[in-house]
Amino acid sequence: MTGDEIVTRLRAALGDRVDTSPASLAAARADKSGHAASGTPLAIVHAAAVSDVQATLRIATETGTPVVTRGAGTGLAGGANAGDGEIVLSVRAMDRIVEVEPDDLVAVVEPGILNAALNAELAQHGLWWAPDPASRAISTVGGNIATGAGGLLCAKYGVVRDAVLGVDVVLADGRLLRLGRRTVKGVTGLDLTSLMVGSEGTLGVIVGATLKLRRLVPGDVCTIVAVFPGVRAAASASAAVTASGIQPAVMELMDAASLAAVHALLGMHAPQAGAAQLTIQTDGPLSTAESEMIAGLLRGLGGSVAVSHDADEGERLLAIRRAMHPAMETLGTTLIEDVSVPRSALPAMFDEIARVERAFGLVIPTVAHAGDGNLHPNFVFDGPDVPPVVWEAADELFRAALRLGGTLTGEHGVGVLKRRWLADELGDDQWELQRRIKSVFDPLGILNPGKVFAS
Amino acid sequence: MTGDEIVTRLRAALGDRVDTSPASLAAARADKSGHAASGTPLAIVHAAAVSDVQATLRIATETGTPVVTRGAGTGLAGGANAGDGEIVLSVRAMDRIVEVEPDDLVAVVEPGILNAALNAELAQHGLWWAPDPASRAISTVGGNIATGAGGLLCAKYGVVRDAVLGVDVVLADGRLLRLGRRTVKGVTGLDLTSLMVGSEGTLGVIVGATLKLRRLVPGDVCTIVAVFPGVRAAASASAAVTASGIQPAVMELMDAASLAAVHALLGMHAPQAGAAQLTIQTDGPLSTAESEMIAGLLRGLGGSVAVSHDADEGERLLAIRRAMHPAMETLGTTLIEDVSVPRSALPAMFDEIARVERAFGLVIPTVAHAGDGNLHPNFVFDGPDVPPVVWEAADELFRAALRLGGTLTGEHGVGVLKRRWLADELGDDQWELQRRIKSVFDPLGILNPGKVFAS
Repeated sequence: MTGDEIVTRLRAALGDRVDTSPASLAAARADKSGHAASGTPLAIVHAAAVSDVQATLRIATETGTPVVTRGAGTGLAGGANAGDGEIVLSVRAMDRIVEVEPDDLVAVVEPGILNAALNAELAQHGLWWAPDPASRAISTVGGNIATGAGGLLCAKYGVVRDAVLGVDVVLADGRLLRLGRRTVKGVTGLDLTSLMVGSEGTLGVIVGATLKLRRLVPGDVCTIVAVFPGVRAAASASAAVTASGIQPAVMELMDAASLAAVHALLGMHAPQAGAAQLTIQTDGPLSTAESEMIAGLLRGLGGSVAVSHDADEGERLLAIRRAMHPAMETLGTTLIEDVSVPRSALPAMFDEIARVERAFGLVIPTVAHAGDGNLHPNFVFDGPDVPPVVWEAADELFRAALRLGGTLTGEHGVGVLKRRWLADELGDDQWELQRRIKSVFDPLGILNPGKVFAS
Repeated sequence: MTGDEIVTRLRAALGDRVDTSPASLAAARADKSGHAASGTPLAIVHAAAVSDVQATLRIATETGTPVVTRGAGTGLAGGANAGDGEIVLSVRAMDRIVEVEPDDLVAVVEPGILNAALNAELAQHGLWWAPDPASRAISTVGGNIATGAGGLLCAKYGVVRDAVLGVDVVLADGRLLRLGRRTVKGVTGLDLTSLMVGSEGTLGVIVGATLKLRRLVPGDVCTIVAVFPGVRAAASASAAVTASGIQPAVMELMDAASLAAVHALLGMHAPQAGAAQLTIQTDGPLSTAESEMIAGLLRGLGGSVAVSHDADEGERLLAIRRAMHPAMETLGTTLIEDVSVPRSALPAMFDEIARVERAFGLVIPTVAHAGDGNLHPNFVFDGPDVPPVVWEAADELFRAALRLGGTLTGEHGVGVLKRRWLADELGDDQWELQRRIKSVFDPLGILNPGKVFAS
């Protein structure tokens, strides 16, 4: 069947939810990773309901057409980029909050709602959903779940997997499954909900989610900014905070190149040459005492420390960290890496980054969610394509992270950009097992082909 | 191949780790559920190392022999009971703590270590592993993971899935896979670690686990005991505590029949007729203030309330709850059910239990982890076999729990005792999908056949 015939079938079933405008198709080729798929997809289906998703997938199965599920397109690994011959299935318009049950700390939502929009609504009930990716203002809950996008708060408040009780999933053949539960506990059968978290569109289409909520944390948020003469001192200090047993809500590290780029973007005074910064927030009823203890610890380690007890000022200070991605964009095309290591290995990982910088003659501005050991080294280059030297340097970084007991990706996912390293981390036997599990869900291989598992 | 020939092959490979003593074989037929497998297994392999597990599974695959993995045999759903023609693979002797890394809040353990033994060791480092099943003194960490055994602390400190970062697994064919990670975050590929949690020996044999630890909670534990005139009032009061936003560490409910049985066992004064009891513990730096707030709330709801700030007295008060299982054993054979409902539905679930009691002319002593909505209705009867009327009543309870948005099993697993209801909760499509996933791990169907997925 030709592409035109497939689009005709989609139009017959879904009418004006099928979009073939050149601008829309072009946009669906790329995400925020800088990577774009080759070629152009057939059409975008803007699903408004579960039945639209089912209709699309039935046609895809009948015609053997690949389907790329897409939310807001804010991914950083190319996982939702669609190319030649593919149907883009957008669930962005499925953005309702179906239910909020404060007494059970549960919400049921559609996948297209933005993380920030959900949390704005939940705040009215004194509640929040913990996953807090840096993209929360522009990324969807469904996308957060599909990639396992963690964010700044994971060490204290858990990862996405901990915050999802159930998902509704449409399989490749159009059948709807309700996975998981809405109870605190439940061990009936295999945990397919967790299998869907981070599955990057390869197993099914998430059309609903039952979320585990938290009550808003009482007390003031305190913010600590500590400047160190170099990145290794900052990394060691963050490891010392973790080892002290005080659990900050947020602990972000910016190296010298990152800090300089953000200061330039925001029109701030240039930081001292080589200086690296920790930005730490404590929350909860003991936040003031905890912030003072952390500040004392950091001063003892040679940091230049300031503490703010004002929430607005705290947000302004954290905004410096949140400006990292825009700051990099001013420098060129950015490949944002995402390795994660055990927290005690953070200083060693920064040593490895310095070694790779020297070996390849690159500057690799790096920020880290230092509280949980997740680093984002940024490779900046000109033009749309990642130069070979960058991939070689990234390869060195990945192998270093694995040697230190770490992982390829802490929260961005594998997508297309890391698929060639997947078997290095999983081992061949596990890689093959995972592919077979995908085949159980998607025997025709039409769900996001070429992503994650492609060899 | 005959059973004798299979045992001969096991002996040739594993020597005196192969046990065919009648007493051992008889013990391996049963767990703590009251259920025993029909017939007698071929042999027990007492694995001392991963290589023993691999050797056993290679022989099982080559000879097509079923394998039942077993830890301490404390399960409550018959999931580790072995019968005719089966090899019992005991990992109880693999009980080493391989590594404790306090700075990363990680421990690596073998599966046979007892939960309490692990936590005694971790306490030396100021750490603990949160899963806290009532059986923790006698149950293994591997068994806790294989069943998803939650316990008393789940509402505040999470379920087993939240506390396991990775597992080492031997597949049916003897290959060793290392699943998961040791970092806080990690989304490389599908989350097979979570798939193993609660898989009840059907996918592979867990031979090692990387556990996510917590630091010991500072501050005093406060214990609140509140007696109410009836179980519905107690259930409503527990729901009110949850809705208040104060998060106790423990909130246990005992109905009148449970309370009376335990008081009799422990030689205490008989409780007032019909009285039900909540036992609540708060912990952390604010535990005293929280306990006073909860006590005030419960008094306002008609409870007769006592508060203790003494840790030892608190343990004695909680021991009343922990004596439930022995108390039931004095009355006859016990089938302990395990439904879980959304917390707000707890009073309604107690209404359903009362309805079932009247309809079937039974007394169903029930305790509940009221803080998380997990109820354990106990059916007590004479003799080894569950009478049909009990299964009919249990069937009614399961359906009521599902109607209330709940689940068949909160923490005991499906095993053999709940397999006939599995498809009722999962739906036929999901049930079939789960069976196919099992087949990917275990194509010959030799791992714990007849458990969980048997039709």
